[in-house]
Amino acid sequence: MTNWETFYSKYAPPPKYDLVLKDVSNFSQSNEHRRIVLITSGGTTVPLEHNTVRYVDNFSAGTRGSASTEYFLQEGYAVIFMHRINSLEPFVRHFQGHDLLNMLELKDNEEGETSISVKSDSLPKLAPLLRLYKKAISENRLIKVGFTSLSDYLWLLRGVAGVLAKAGSRAMLYLAAAVSDFYIPADELPEHKIQSKEGAPVISLWLVPKILQPLVSLWVPDAFVISFKLETDDSILISKAHDALDKYKHKLVIGNLLQTRKHHVVLVSATEETDLKLTPEEIQSGVEIEKKLVAELIQKHSLFIEGNL
Amino acid sequence: MTNWETFYSKYAPPPKYDLVLKDVSNFSQSNEHRRIVLITSGGTTVPLEHNTVRYVDNFSAGTRGSASTEYFLQEGYAVIFMHRINSLEPFVRHFQGHDLLNMLELKDNEEGETSISVKSDSLPKLAPLLRLYKKAISENRLIKVGFTSLSDYLWLLRGVAGVLAKAGSRAMLYLAAAVSDFYIPADELPEHKIQSKEGAPVISLWLVPKILQPLVSLWVPDAFVISFKLETDDSILISKAHDALDKYKHKLVIGNLLQTRKHHVVLVSATEETDLKLTPEEIQSGVEIEKKLVAELIQKHSLFIEGNL
Repeated sequence: MTNWETFYSKYAPPPKYDLVLKDVSNFSQSNEHRRIVLITSGGTTVPLEHNTVRYVDNFSAGTRGSASTEYFLQEGYAVIFMHRINSLEPFVRHFQGHDLLNMLELKDNEEGETSISVKSDSLPKLAPLLRLYKKAISENRLIKVGFTSLSDYLWLLRGVAGVLAKAGSRAMLYLAAAVSDFYIPADELPEHKIQSKEGAPVISLWLVPKILQPLVSLWVPDAFVISFKLETDDSILISKAHDALDKYKHKLVIGNLLQTRKHHVVLVSATEETDLKLTPEEIQSGVEIEKKLVAELIQKHSLFIEGNL
Repeated sequence: MTNWETFYSKYAPPPKYDLVLKDVSNFSQSNEHRRIVLITSGGTTVPLEHNTVRYVDNFSAGTRGSASTEYFLQEGYAVIFMHRINSLEPFVRHFQGHDLLNMLELKDNEEGETSISVKSDSLPKLAPLLRLYKKAISENRLIKVGFTSLSDYLWLLRGVAGVLAKAGSRAMLYLAAAVSDFYIPADELPEHKIQSKEGAPVISLWLVPKILQPLVSLWVPDAFVISFKLETDDSILISKAHDALDKYKHKLVIGNLLQTRKHHVVLVSATEETDLKLTPEEIQSGVEIEKKLVAELIQKHSLFIEGNL
């Protein structure tokens, strides 16, 4: 496994890195009277070539992170939404493709003036979301930070963690992004697109350094850190969650299975495992598991701030 | 290289395959008095596991395909827009993230009734796009077909081609999607998420069958087929385009380089190479290369239908 310091030394920070961190720092300062949560969301990519045409990607639409952002905003938190570019974003995640255009009505009046308004039958869905979004924006409680590649993600995570360190226990890190476990070191990448006439290539992957270790012990030692563990095999989920807690000494792992993650999560701490599930009625009526999860985490964050967790 | 018939025999069709083809067939029939173009757009994925957490992806935002769709619609074509799910789509591609929400204004009147309208300063951008979109929809000239994986793409391509065969030379196939050259056969995939404790994996890739071959010779022998060739190394672009024309006997390859693809393409036929470029003034004023490209292709389609190409 690559040492994390070696990894950072091999990759340049993303474009506009300093500008992004300055914005995040201003955001954090203007929310110093509020609790603040960093939510990471979506998958990271690992390039297979320098001129990137192909990459290995981790599956994640970004549902968990974007949905949770809405519920944290609803409860008064300031949210740093650090997401894979083009993954789902809060509020707009409810509309795919041409949904929003289909809600709009064009009118030309007799003077030839055009106006566009939302059709009345779309108001019940759109108005509450738009209201919550506008409130969060007007109170400066939402900032977005985008990433695509694994190295951009790791740079931004360390940078934002450095800003949040100043918030102490007021800060929560909700690390829902699906981060690659494997990568190809920059110095082993071919310069140009792999040519198929050379025959099918064999790709050797390296293990990504476990970034939770420096994150918890060095970067944000006082923050409430929550990591996620996604598996497809339920026989190893809980033991892997405990392995992570033992190793990194943070407070909580949210365990979930790919097959059931939309209605069942397990909160695993060193001393207990708490199941959160949606009832069939809740699923039917469109309740999201993130609503329950965020409510539970906000309670635990209070205990954590009081020193009782 | 895998034979294409073997490939199809190893993968099941995507969910709702029959339904999708029925819709496409109805769409094609209702446009039997118009020219019709199949536009493929965005990249395909190749799963690394059965329970897909990781996959190899081809880079493509879907700009070429989604932009071209707008220009073909503007010129009266019926468009089958076959795109990677979550890649750019026509009309909405002009708005990212929260752009559309930011254009909306919420008003509550004295009776407590809510209305939402588009702010007047957003009308110049939104109104013309919305008008063109609504015209295309009301005339039933746009249908969308989504894919994610390589195998779904190949199934849908063959199915839609089967429908378009009936349209003869009225049909154009504009194959702008970035399709994987490599894949891992389904019977070699691990069942569960690759565990990192087993050490970094080595991935062996197979060559994808060249689907242009049966497409041109068997599935749509009378259609106007245009393929794309994207390279990063300009010294091999033109020769690779001619290789493709020699091999598959279709009419046109659009060559482009990753670095300059937004303002320069080369139309390569068996007898000539035509450069299309944007001038600095055009780039400055926001003209898209797809506007020129589509205009040129529509002229060539006319010649093709008349038997003069």
